[in-house]
Amino acid sequence: MNLPVPLERLVASLSRLPGVGEKTATRLAFYILREKNNYAEELSAALLDAKSALRYCRRCHHLTDNDLCVVCVDTTRHSGPICIVESVPDLLAIERTGDFSGTYHVLHGVIAPLRGIGPDDLRLRSLIERLKTSAPPELIIATNVGVEGEATALYIKKVVQPLGIRVSRIATGIPMGGDLEYLDQITLSRALSGRRDF
Amino acid sequence: MNLPVPLERLVASLSRLPGVGEKTATRLAFYILREKNNYAEELSAALLDAKSALRYCRRCHHLTDNDLCVVCVDTTRHSGPICIVESVPDLLAIERTGDFSGTYHVLHGVIAPLRGIGPDDLRLRSLIERLKTSAPPELIIATNVGVEGEATALYIKKVVQPLGIRVSRIATGIPMGGDLEYLDQITLSRALSGRRDF
Repeated sequence: MNLPVPLERLVASLSRLPGVGEKTATRLAFYILREKNNYAEELSAALLDAKSALRYCRRCHHLTDNDLCVVCVDTTRHSGPICIVESVPDLLAIERTGDFSGTYHVLHGVIAPLRGIGPDDLRLRSLIERLKTSAPPELIIATNVGVEGEATALYIKKVVQPLGIRVSRIATGIPMGGDLEYLDQITLSRALSGRRDF
Repeated sequence: MNLPVPLERLVASLSRLPGVGEKTATRLAFYILREKNNYAEELSAALLDAKSALRYCRRCHHLTDNDLCVVCVDTTRHSGPICIVESVPDLLAIERTGDFSGTYHVLHGVIAPLRGIGPDDLRLRSLIERLKTSAPPELIIATNVGVEGEATALYIKKVVQPLGIRVSRIATGIPMGGDLEYLDQITLSRALSGRRDF
C-alpha cells in the first residue's frame, strides 16, 4: 500500500489486537495521528505504565499495583469464602454483582490437555498453601461452564477434599430471560436435573 | 469497578479510540497485558515513532516520513493530472485502484460552515500556488459525494476557473453490484441525468 514505514509499523502493531484487522488498524492509526492533546503520547505512556506497574496480588493473583490487591487489603473479607476463577475479567464480573463478600483466587487458566496446559501451569499450589494456613468456610469453584472449566473444577475438588473444606460449584441452568425453545440440550438437561423445591 | 489505577488509565486511554467503548477497552487492556514478546512496549514505541516521524508532504500534504511523499518523489507522475482529495485514507483508496498516475492534493478537510470550517482551514492556498507554478493537464476533484464535499468541489471550481485549467469531478451513479430497488432517490436521479451513450 506504500505507506510510510512508521505508519506501516503502527498499523501492524495495532493489527495484533483481538478483533482488529488491517483495515480497522489503519483507521485507528489515522485517528491517533489526527487526535489532539497528545493522545498518541498519552496512550503510549499508559501502555508502558500499566505494563510496568501492574503485577499479581501475592495472595490471590488478582491484578494490582501493590503487594496485595484491592480485595485482599480489605481484611473484613478474609473470613468469607474463597471464590476460584479462571481470569481477572471473571473476577471483575463477580465483583460487579456486589453479591460476594469473600476473597478470590485467580487460576490464570484452566486445565486443557489438548493445549498442553496441566495443573502445574495454574496457580494451584498457592491455593493449597492458602487453604492450609487459613481454612475458609467454603470454596466456591467459579470456573467457566465448559469442558475445560468443568474438568478443572473436578480436579480442584479432588485435590481439596482431603483438607475437609466445603466445596461448591456455581449453578448451571437457564440464564435470566432465556427462552427454553432456543436453549441447547445440555443447558436444559442441567436445569432439569438441578431443579429445586419451589 | 475498583481497578488498579494504571489499568484504569490504560482503559480510559483506549476508550478514546473510535468504536471502542469501556467494555472493549477493558478487553483490549487485558489482552495487551497478557500478550507475550513485549507487545505493550512495541505498541508504545510504534505510537511515539509514528507521531514524531510522520509529517505532511511539502507538495501535496500526503503523510510521509520525508520531505516529499512516495507519490511526489516519483517525478514521472508530475506531468499527470492533480487529484484533490479530502483526506489521506481517500488518497490511499484511489491509489489502491492502480488507475491513477498523476499526483494528489490532500485538503485535510472540507468546507463545513456548520462546524466553522471555511476555505482558509483547508490546504487550498498551497494548491493555488502549485497550479500557478506547474499547470497540470487536468484537476480532478475527488471530494466525497455529500453536501460538504459538493460545496467544497464547487468552491474549488470557482477559485480555479480563472487559471484556465480543465476541472473535472469524479462520477456519481450506481455503485457496482448496486440494486436499483434499494438505492436512494438522489443517487438514482444522478445516475439518470449522468447517463452516457452505450
